[in-house]
Amino acid sequence: MPASLTPPRTRAPSHAERARTLVARQKTGALGTVESAGHPYVSLVAFAMDGTDPVFLISKLAEHTKNLAADPRASLLIAEDLTSDSLANARVTLLGSCRRLDDAGAVRDAFLAAHPSAERYVGFADFAFYRLEVERLRYVGGFGRMSWPDAHDWRAAEPDPIAPHAAGIIEHMNDDHADALVAYARAFTKATDATSAIMTAVDRYGFDMRVVTADGDAPARLAFDPPITTPTEAREALVAMVRDARGKLGG
Amino acid sequence: MPASLTPPRTRAPSHAERARTLVARQKTGALGTVESAGHPYVSLVAFAMDGTDPVFLISKLAEHTKNLAADPRASLLIAEDLTSDSLANARVTLLGSCRRLDDAGAVRDAFLAAHPSAERYVGFADFAFYRLEVERLRYVGGFGRMSWPDAHDWRAAEPDPIAPHAAGIIEHMNDDHADALVAYARAFTKATDATSAIMTAVDRYGFDMRVVTADGDAPARLAFDPPITTPTEAREALVAMVRDARGKLGG
Repeated sequence: MPASLTPPRTRAPSHAERARTLVARQKTGALGTVESAGHPYVSLVAFAMDGTDPVFLISKLAEHTKNLAADPRASLLIAEDLTSDSLANARVTLLGSCRRLDDAGAVRDAFLAAHPSAERYVGFADFAFYRLEVERLRYVGGFGRMSWPDAHDWRAAEPDPIAPHAAGIIEHMNDDHADALVAYARAFTKATDATSAIMTAVDRYGFDMRVVTADGDAPARLAFDPPITTPTEAREALVAMVRDARGKLGG
Repeated sequence: MPASLTPPRTRAPSHAERARTLVARQKTGALGTVESAGHPYVSLVAFAMDGTDPVFLISKLAEHTKNLAADPRASLLIAEDLTSDSLANARVTLLGSCRRLDDAGAVRDAFLAAHPSAERYVGFADFAFYRLEVERLRYVGGFGRMSWPDAHDWRAAEPDPIAPHAAGIIEHMNDDHADALVAYARAFTKATDATSAIMTAVDRYGFDMRVVTADGDAPARLAFDPPITTPTEAREALVAMVRDARGKLGG
């Protein structure tokens, strides 16, 4: 079996896009600040996104706030699942300077939309909004899938509109359309003798499968052309690909 | 209603004990290290405990490992639930110096027991064990419940043996023994007119309730005397306290 069955030039999300998508779906992260003597200090923070920068509502009594007052350098770790044993979980570290906002304005609404319970203390005199201006970022998608995406790419990236629906699409395809997945594998990859295939991921640009043949199994990715933006478009694209696959297989 | 119905001198876990108990039940944390230019860097790490110090199995290719090679100062954030929206979750930050272990010895077994999947890479040449020697710690149990516990208390503290069973005990008491909880509240707190009570926490030293009366509700804590160490002892203590409560109430 080849290491991968993915056809050449199959579009996949960039690491900047994967990072942006991951961050858009989380609300809590681990904030690193610098203590007075230079020691790194990590604390738990609730965040919301103001464009591509995270914002926080923090108390001046908290350690991290004291640290930021003296040194604005900070980083924020955001992970798919910070409590999981598995380090295969995707995660992002955003690095930059974190400063108090004089005018909370629109940030206030974005934060309260993400954290309604913060209504209880948003008016307290010791709480204020801070923004981490992202200068650099590190993306780790699992073993061997990591990089320092370009900050311009980060700012240009949009969260994947399919991400909130991905789990449902994957479950539906694996539960009800195992035959379609085998047809994709046989028609569009070198695994013409595929015996089964499992969808493992889906995004705006395509989907990933684990393809099984008599010789073993390997990953394969196939593209949506053009990219999709809604669950309805996902369904239409997947149905059209079954039709194309069966045509090609002469079925 | 008083702010709390807890009788005077009711023993409760210290913050050092709460921190030790929390850490014993987690396997993943957020590690803060210092980048070459002094910027804090937060990354996800799997850990195991070697006594009261966390140990890590990390690759020299990883950013945090490069950072530690140049500056051993580090901190590790460990939380009950790092992905939760609620900052009422308890969490601990352990601060100290993190250095490579020349002799992995017993640490290896402890780490692999906590992280069996690490067997896949424990032998790789670029992976090594590191230990964070805890010098200080910050405990945050929720709003207004926080401190810097003494490091000697941290090293002396034992994880609560009841913690792995607490959820089951709480569910059982609330589902099947609502009458016992009301009897505890009426007999052992000032809420002699309690109409209901819900157990919210249990540990080796006692348990917490939310007690409801016609005037409102308030928290109450009652002690186990002596402290308990097993679920069986919890049951025996709770049964004995019902008997005492009903005797006192003349029921």
